[in-house]
Amino acid sequence: MPQDIYDKIMMLAKRRGFIYPSFEIYGGVAGFYDYGPLGSRLKLNIENLWRKFYILQDNCIEINTPTITLYEVLKASGHVNEFTDLTIDCKKCKQSYKVEDILENISVAEAIKKNKIKCPNCSTELKDAYPVNLMFSTKIGIGNARDAFLRPETAQGIFIDFHLLYRYAREKLPFGVIQVGRGYRNEVSPRQGIIRLREFSMAEAEVFIDPGEKTHPDFKKVKDKKLNLYDNINQINLSVEKAVKTKVINNQALAYYMYLTQEFLFSAGVDPKKFRFRKHADNERAHYATECWDAELFSERFGWIECVGIADRSAYDLQSHIDSSGKDMYALRKYDKPKTVEVKKIIPKMSELGPLFMGKAGKIKTILEDIELKDTKKITVNLDGQTVEIPKNCYEIVETKEKKFGEKFVPHVIEPSYGIDRILYCIIEHSFYEGEKKGEDYKILKFNPIIAPIKVGVLPLTSDERLVNIANEIDRSLRNAGIETYYDDGGSIGRRYARMDEVGTPFCITIDHDSISDKTVTIRDRDTTKQIRKKIEEVTSFIKEKISS
Amino acid sequence: MPQDIYDKIMMLAKRRGFIYPSFEIYGGVAGFYDYGPLGSRLKLNIENLWRKFYILQDNCIEINTPTITLYEVLKASGHVNEFTDLTIDCKKCKQSYKVEDILENISVAEAIKKNKIKCPNCSTELKDAYPVNLMFSTKIGIGNARDAFLRPETAQGIFIDFHLLYRYAREKLPFGVIQVGRGYRNEVSPRQGIIRLREFSMAEAEVFIDPGEKTHPDFKKVKDKKLNLYDNINQINLSVEKAVKTKVINNQALAYYMYLTQEFLFSAGVDPKKFRFRKHADNERAHYATECWDAELFSERFGWIECVGIADRSAYDLQSHIDSSGKDMYALRKYDKPKTVEVKKIIPKMSELGPLFMGKAGKIKTILEDIELKDTKKITVNLDGQTVEIPKNCYEIVETKEKKFGEKFVPHVIEPSYGIDRILYCIIEHSFYEGEKKGEDYKILKFNPIIAPIKVGVLPLTSDERLVNIANEIDRSLRNAGIETYYDDGGSIGRRYARMDEVGTPFCITIDHDSISDKTVTIRDRDTTKQIRKKIEEVTSFIKEKISS
Repeated sequence: MPQDIYDKIMMLAKRRGFIYPSFEIYGGVAGFYDYGPLGSRLKLNIENLWRKFYILQDNCIEINTPTITLYEVLKASGHVNEFTDLTIDCKKCKQSYKVEDILENISVAEAIKKNKIKCPNCSTELKDAYPVNLMFSTKIGIGNARDAFLRPETAQGIFIDFHLLYRYAREKLPFGVIQVGRGYRNEVSPRQGIIRLREFSMAEAEVFIDPGEKTHPDFKKVKDKKLNLYDNINQINLSVEKAVKTKVINNQALAYYMYLTQEFLFSAGVDPKKFRFRKHADNERAHYATECWDAELFSERFGWIECVGIADRSAYDLQSHIDSSGKDMYALRKYDKPKTVEVKKIIPKMSELGPLFMGKAGKIKTILEDIELKDTKKITVNLDGQTVEIPKNCYEIVETKEKKFGEKFVPHVIEPSYGIDRILYCIIEHSFYEGEKKGEDYKILKFNPIIAPIKVGVLPLTSDERLVNIANEIDRSLRNAGIETYYDDGGSIGRRYARMDEVGTPFCITIDHDSISDKTVTIRDRDTTKQIRKKIEEVTSFIKEKISS
Repeated sequence: MPQDIYDKIMMLAKRRGFIYPSFEIYGGVAGFYDYGPLGSRLKLNIENLWRKFYILQDNCIEINTPTITLYEVLKASGHVNEFTDLTIDCKKCKQSYKVEDILENISVAEAIKKNKIKCPNCSTELKDAYPVNLMFSTKIGIGNARDAFLRPETAQGIFIDFHLLYRYAREKLPFGVIQVGRGYRNEVSPRQGIIRLREFSMAEAEVFIDPGEKTHPDFKKVKDKKLNLYDNINQINLSVEKAVKTKVINNQALAYYMYLTQEFLFSAGVDPKKFRFRKHADNERAHYATECWDAELFSERFGWIECVGIADRSAYDLQSHIDSSGKDMYALRKYDKPKTVEVKKIIPKMSELGPLFMGKAGKIKTILEDIELKDTKKITVNLDGQTVEIPKNCYEIVETKEKKFGEKFVPHVIEPSYGIDRILYCIIEHSFYEGEKKGEDYKILKFNPIIAPIKVGVLPLTSDERLVNIANEIDRSLRNAGIETYYDDGGSIGRRYARMDEVGTPFCITIDHDSISDKTVTIRDRDTTKQIRKKIEEVTSFIKEKISS
């Protein structure tokens, strides 16, 4: 079978230390990959470039929350009920399949009825399809253990801290919160290699905005930039501003983060000709989204791949957590001056609560006092994950006057969510060039210097101790400046250049015998193969400038 | 109850955005914490400083492997059987306890027999103690699901890739491989806040060495440096070299990494007076270690805390994985010239293997051909995690001559394993100073600039637009240089200094009316509170130099 580009890349990736199949010595498991030394570095460089865009440029703050997530959180977010794939099992060999993997363009019910679809493994009839939740589940503690899942997205960890983060942001909107880390999805039968992982790396931003002002402070700066959009029928090239004005994109905030995404991807090395934003059709949006655009990157093997989702999650998540936890997670739109208004307050009766709820009565009292009453039919509180109804004899409701400083509201959320592994793979594919040199295959990864895992190859021409000493000195100086180097003294210089080209190293420094007398070295550029001579003392600052742009 | 330093720090940490209890709106769960905006930044800075030591200085390579780990891996590593805590349940309230939490200095059997220990929760008698495995378990896939755990350490992901990493290192020892990421430990009833987490951040290095040469290429550079050692009785201050010569520390490689650890911790801001290396007694070493030293940091609340373990894991892990997987994971000690030797080889018979093992016969054939025979009594192969005995009629054993280029051996491993969360907490405690200013409490976190989450506070003295413009320009210039800033225009300048001191910001830049005319600003040093004036154009390079040392 002739190799396609994916096969070639994955072979190179394994041979040179970018990507390994996980647990290979124990037979491997689909949906898991390891990043080797070069892959880890490439990934870290992509993530740090992403942080530059989101933290240093966009002023977002970063948090880190556990991957193990309480049942209650994911019940409230809708994932327990709705994060599912329609699945179908074989009657004989028991193999399970994701329905859409084996039934293309046919309605499920129809196909099953007509019994057209057999088990791809053993050709037996299949049973009925059923939804399978895609979260990995586990338990915290033993005995009275608590149900939990591995997070399907980092976003929920941000939402449930909203009240704390809002305080950190000194109670001003908009502000963005990012999280970079692992996400999990227990795919039924993943079959697309590194494109469909069960454990993956994500970078997500949750930007909290006032629903009445869905814009961004820097919108003006980007309004004339072009976006490459696809509405599922036509490819359209529109300015950020025009896309919003013509309602192709719902609001300025969403459009701003689409442009930021495009700018980040191009800086990271995505080929602009293999990039587009595709709008989700009404029937494909996630349960939380009111509008969603995917940044899609083109792969020769897989076609257009969803690599970033930029969604308007509206008030969905915060409202769900307010409803489930009873916690005040509102933002405040301040009045110019305080108003006096009539409110209904709950006055708990400890004499009734005490005997009924024992040690938990105090906690219930605190929760009750915080509740902002809308209707008075039924009062429930959330107690350690359980919804408990409070009997009417346990409280009084009184009407009173209060000074109000503003109006509470639930912020809306714009979420750019990046799949780092897919972006990384596509960058490798877009950077991959092959040809021949002296009758041999010759491969080059033309990585942008800013993401290249190794910035500089340090190559002493011979094993002459004087050359080796200079090479070591240059290597040390570069490393002290935080620049990743690879010291290589093995084989012909042509072979060594080829090794560095194959892993995308943008510069090679060759130390030769002239280096001893005139204190200069050769710097070779990967893409032009041009060589220049530079004074040894200038090498570090020269390279530093080259790789930061 | 008077607050101790832990309470004070955790209050400050929550109020200012360092550390939040996880899932707080759903009642929280012991053993989980979130890092807020400042905590995440502090953690990332500590991890990146650590990488500087291990990657840029020590030339280690970094990899990234899944947190979900196959059963087979952790069965081979010994964690399935030995990673346990002795646990005891209450007969009435069903609460579970880690035995050592409720039985101090008494033998378990004795205590249970004498029935002295009652349930701390409900005072009822306890049942018998039993070992509980501390790994979080989950399942990969559905139907024919595979058992898996969340990794208790990042190390196993490195060990099972050894053969690939050895090739990356061009088959030369020593080389070190690091991994930074989450680890998991399903503690029975964690009770020490952020010191005992169920999900934590680790940074581990596995350094592969030749058992015949347990040293390090840079040993000479550090041999005269002093180590602060504690042998469970006495505090001893020895040079690295002397500690090895007198067999206090087993070998040079172990001693080298102990010194690297000490140097890293001091650079990160650990108080040298609150630091020691303690040697594990024979009865406390993990199942894989032949010698282990803990870097312990002193906390006023918790006493001496184990923050880094530096273990000689010998050949334990690689040998276990070779035995369990049948995979060749040896290193090669090359002969000066190839030798011809007699070997026993297995010649598989496909005519017998085929009918017996069907589709798996080919795989078995490949495994059999790779086996290096020692004894010929019983041949087993590892097939998808199962050990399968191969009947004698399925193969022949022949003696043949082979050219050998070297001698295979199992490398030894030196492992420095860092608990990032504990180190982070101790650094906060060691950096915490409190006093009074104008009758109010005044708190300072004296973070080393290199790990401080915010490097510079940018403070325009008034809301005069000219000052604001200069402030914005300085803020932008610093951020473009990758320097974390905090822009603060609220409240008196004294109040703003106090806010920055409280979160450990080493420098504040104040823009005042003189800034308009003479293009200079004030730079205030947190620790001396001294102020100097600098030209605006020099600010970024001045700060850059100050924070990198």
